[in-house]
Amino acid sequence: MIKRILLLACIAPTFLFAQTSDSAFIKMISDNIMVSRASYNNLHTLTKNIGGRLAGSPQMVMAENWGYKALQDAGADKVTLQECMVPHWVRGGKDKASVTYKTAAGKTETMQLNVLALGNSDGSGPKGVKAPLMRVANFDELEKRKDEVKGKIVFYNVPFEETFIQTFQAYGKNVIYRGIGASRAAKYGAVAVLVRSMTHAMDNNPHTGAMRYLDSIPHIPAAAVGLRDVEKLDTLFDNNVALTAQLFTYGKMLPDTIGHNVIGELKGTEFPDEIITVGGHLDSWDVAEGAHDDGAGVVQTIEVLRAFKALGFQPKHTIRFVLFANEENATNGGKKYAAEAKAKNEKHIFALESDAGGFTPRGFGFEVKPETWQKLESWKKLFSPYGGDTFTPGGDGADIGYLKEAFGTPMAGLEPDTQRYFDVHHAVTDVFEAVSIRELKLGAVNMAALLYLVDKYGL
Amino acid sequence: MIKRILLLACIAPTFLFAQTSDSAFIKMISDNIMVSRASYNNLHTLTKNIGGRLAGSPQMVMAENWGYKALQDAGADKVTLQECMVPHWVRGGKDKASVTYKTAAGKTETMQLNVLALGNSDGSGPKGVKAPLMRVANFDELEKRKDEVKGKIVFYNVPFEETFIQTFQAYGKNVIYRGIGASRAAKYGAVAVLVRSMTHAMDNNPHTGAMRYLDSIPHIPAAAVGLRDVEKLDTLFDNNVALTAQLFTYGKMLPDTIGHNVIGELKGTEFPDEIITVGGHLDSWDVAEGAHDDGAGVVQTIEVLRAFKALGFQPKHTIRFVLFANEENATNGGKKYAAEAKAKNEKHIFALESDAGGFTPRGFGFEVKPETWQKLESWKKLFSPYGGDTFTPGGDGADIGYLKEAFGTPMAGLEPDTQRYFDVHHAVTDVFEAVSIRELKLGAVNMAALLYLVDKYGL
Repeated sequence: MIKRILLLACIAPTFLFAQTSDSAFIKMISDNIMVSRASYNNLHTLTKNIGGRLAGSPQMVMAENWGYKALQDAGADKVTLQECMVPHWVRGGKDKASVTYKTAAGKTETMQLNVLALGNSDGSGPKGVKAPLMRVANFDELEKRKDEVKGKIVFYNVPFEETFIQTFQAYGKNVIYRGIGASRAAKYGAVAVLVRSMTHAMDNNPHTGAMRYLDSIPHIPAAAVGLRDVEKLDTLFDNNVALTAQLFTYGKMLPDTIGHNVIGELKGTEFPDEIITVGGHLDSWDVAEGAHDDGAGVVQTIEVLRAFKALGFQPKHTIRFVLFANEENATNGGKKYAAEAKAKNEKHIFALESDAGGFTPRGFGFEVKPETWQKLESWKKLFSPYGGDTFTPGGDGADIGYLKEAFGTPMAGLEPDTQRYFDVHHAVTDVFEAVSIRELKLGAVNMAALLYLVDKYGL
Repeated sequence: MIKRILLLACIAPTFLFAQTSDSAFIKMISDNIMVSRASYNNLHTLTKNIGGRLAGSPQMVMAENWGYKALQDAGADKVTLQECMVPHWVRGGKDKASVTYKTAAGKTETMQLNVLALGNSDGSGPKGVKAPLMRVANFDELEKRKDEVKGKIVFYNVPFEETFIQTFQAYGKNVIYRGIGASRAAKYGAVAVLVRSMTHAMDNNPHTGAMRYLDSIPHIPAAAVGLRDVEKLDTLFDNNVALTAQLFTYGKMLPDTIGHNVIGELKGTEFPDEIITVGGHLDSWDVAEGAHDDGAGVVQTIEVLRAFKALGFQPKHTIRFVLFANEENATNGGKKYAAEAKAKNEKHIFALESDAGGFTPRGFGFEVKPETWQKLESWKKLFSPYGGDTFTPGGDGADIGYLKEAFGTPMAGLEPDTQRYFDVHHAVTDVFEAVSIRELKLGAVNMAALLYLVDKYGL
């Protein structure tokens, strides 16, 4: 208490006035967003009428058309489609897997596994692949046992670290097994890989996501397994039961195709050539509705625009509201956006991304110069009423990160609470019903507040 | 940044050491709780095997027996059942309601309404009650139009205030219509009331909850209506359509019966006669599984005990882990606990309650002396890694509040994020699946940390 009073006493009257008026404006933003049904309706349409929308899919074309209209309806001065080439991976069929083993009584048992081929992977085709299943706890074990790998299906069973409070830490540590596990095993002659799903969830839904083949190593099939099935496999392995696995996947990488970033713009009144970017990605994995990943970011981006227009807010700088084309399996939308900005010699002063789910906001991660932190600290109390006042270093997003590379643009990422994200991430459970609309809206409130402050005071 | 460094420079080395060791112990608590499946299993049993458990119900007896065993299993030095009289309200049947009206074309239409009788209310019985429906926006309108009320069913349509960021504010403002709306209308001759459900939810589930009849006013039936049906009713009222409503409820208040607080104890090593209480309430509404309200608080209470024992932590003061008998419709468990403490002249130095859902923790509300805040401020950074570092004034709980009345005991309430609470509160949607077990566990981590600090340093 004492500290608070001292702090207050140090503040000059002008500053107090500015803060009051900022907090009043942010309250107006909040009131407008919290009572509006626009974000509910937008997310419902995107998830339920369009659904899963991987780059290159017909649903993604529908999503672009919807996004164009939604940005217009929200009041953009203009909306443009920015063409970019995107990968065109198709799942190609219903992924299936099973393991066969002999019981102690000598009976042959077959257990079906709930699997999803990893994105970008080549399928086994209708003949499938059948081989002994070999479990490894990590790459170290793979290396130690590399002589056993030839002709096997390798099963990477690397549990999420439950003790990490921020779940992105667990994901960050483990995602390499999804990313390059196939090539690491294929190098020693594995014929396929199964990967424990990247999740904390207590259900059996497999979680897909991007993988990539490393050069000159054979492309083998790769699929994620649901956690309940992983537990069953573990029990068998722990009892030294020999398992033969069979895997059917049909994934295929077709030639690159055309996608679009969908860009709405509010023209700046004083510095129209200085650009602030805010965005999320429009694409999602095919099997999910992409409600949290990243329907939330898309809808929040549109919601910020809608609220600004509804309140008659005219930014000093041009604000671009960008629905990126292709975060999930190549980030080609983000690359294109930055490349074109660079080619046109644009001036990008700030970028903000929302791609961590529509959960209750806790704050922002910032990628800024050290001297900027003092300013950020002074803004914190403006965010406290809306829950977004935890500011942490490090905050480039997958799509806006290319702007930092191109220009060194200061940037931020909305950081919602992370506990539930990997329950649904890239799984069939990432649906509209998994989103609390109030939590989603609160994220938009905090984003709008940050954009308002950066536009007014710079960063 | 600069501020942080200055702060650090002011701290004496001893203090630094103490803080380090505290943070290390709290990390051990967190690691233990985050990897344990105990809370998942406990909540699953309580919600799925026992389910809705209103005071006086057979399920509540099952819940007491389960809680007794669970506290034993978690390692309590002793577990006791503290008898108390509790109200015994029964729903008595399937609540039903409908409205009938004439269309513009002169056709008679009937619309079913999704309703739940309010807890403690007297039913209409099988004959039901049928009368013209009168909508009021609030008590002011009721008073202005009191001459119209006689013989009518009054429909209180008071929406939750969406602009309040903390949803308990909206609940606090509106819950009086559920609480005494029936008596206020009956005073002017109403024959029943329908109350808009106390929720933000976009679904049609009615939300029950306690009501009470004011003395000497006739006891009329009272039920909550789901929000989608409220919207339909609004459309009809807005078009000046005359509505006749029919309501069937069967609620009955039977004579008080015996219930129990279930109390586990860890004996204090230095001050065994100084008591710290932590608890949640075991009872829930009949129609819900009571997962968030208050299965979460119950399971967290048990989890704190389990983790303390697992880590070999021996508190200096006696800690009582209390599963209260009857929060929902009389708080007789809390009253009994405080009354017996008073009768025995016990010394209660702190109490903590968790009864705001198993959502991601944001902090605590504290009911403490002004001079205590300096100590609390110094503890905040210990909670930051676990999300519970927002400390706000005001934090007595419904059950522990009686200790404050009796002894002036300092107290706190766990404050989880509030956005989703009233989506499920007192409705059929308050189920196991609506709880994120990681969020629930994080609440327990923060509770354990606070109890550890209060035991060590006092408050």
